[in-house]
Amino acid sequence: MTSPVLVTITGGTRGPWRVTRMSPATGESLAGVERLATVEGFPRNSKATLEDGAIWSLRGHTSNSRYTTATETSALRAIQADLGRPHATLAALIPIRKSDEWWQLAQDERRTILAEQSRHISIGLEYLPGVARRLYHCRDLGEPFDFLTWFEYPPSESDAFERLVDRLRATDEWRYVDRELDIRLIRE
Amino acid sequence: MTSPVLVTITGGTRGPWRVTRMSPATGESLAGVERLATVEGFPRNSKATLEDGAIWSLRGHTSNSRYTTATETSALRAIQADLGRPHATLAALIPIRKSDEWWQLAQDERRTILAEQSRHISIGLEYLPGVARRLYHCRDLGEPFDFLTWFEYPPSESDAFERLVDRLRATDEWRYVDRELDIRLIRE
Repeated sequence: MTSPVLVTITGGTRGPWRVTRMSPATGESLAGVERLATVEGFPRNSKATLEDGAIWSLRGHTSNSRYTTATETSALRAIQADLGRPHATLAALIPIRKSDEWWQLAQDERRTILAEQSRHISIGLEYLPGVARRLYHCRDLGEPFDFLTWFEYPPSESDAFERLVDRLRATDEWRYVDRELDIRLIRE
Repeated sequence: MTSPVLVTITGGTRGPWRVTRMSPATGESLAGVERLATVEGFPRNSKATLEDGAIWSLRGHTSNSRYTTATETSALRAIQADLGRPHATLAALIPIRKSDEWWQLAQDERRTILAEQSRHISIGLEYLPGVARRLYHCRDLGEPFDFLTWFEYPPSESDAFERLVDRLRATDEWRYVDRELDIRLIRE
């Protein structure tokens, strides 16, 4: 997958994912909603989306890898899981924003914090392929978050997923997260 | 400047920059136009822009640095020039697309080609502050190019600018450029 995939995730009363929990981890939350839907592309007319039962929408895009080395990329590609697996009935949408301090760091400084100090890439690897993930970028679109992180997993991986989230939140990298929202979902 | 700046560059009959030359360096060109204008933001209704004398429009955004180390960032920040200098009456818009092969490379592989093999960052430094530059990203927006590179310089730097362009096009990095258009401009 090299071509970017553009998505709009809407929160409202429609969509295949029912919200089971919605809690701000850091900073301001979004309005409570019953369901999420993911639509490919950016609707030209944002009102059209909102009239379809949506209270808010978040846009993002996949992109080329920004930090992983060739060795890490090979390890990830060998083990990663696709979205949409029938048995992966649980999901999480965790939108994240990082501070200005983070974005002013140079590439090598960010890589050192993310990979060498925080082991973000290797921690993520431990939970594959049980927890499938996709990263959408949105900072450059002027959106309220910098990333929309999306995870899908079967109920048997619930405890593992909680450990993954806890371990990442305890890293040095997470000191640069200044807004984070945690939305848990079940496919119905 | 850490917040992304979104821009739409329109080609048509209006705008402060008159086109003096427009030539494809690699691949397909765009329709010939008389003038370019740059508008901050992405118009919600693309027709509104096109009705204003525009034949085509290209969108992009500034972003955090993707390859520069802390040392390189310091060197660039110490010497870089702003856009809009009154004496910088010449400009160039060079939209560039890179191949799928490039985008499938990992971060360290792209850095090696761009910086170590091709010396893109250090070559660029040699022409600062005479040639002011800004890089807009657009690949992740589903645009026809991956980057819009924009340069502004006074007539006294014209020869230097030609050398800069020639040197970059001769690098290993440029083997991954599969579409490139070269539009030269004068402010009127």
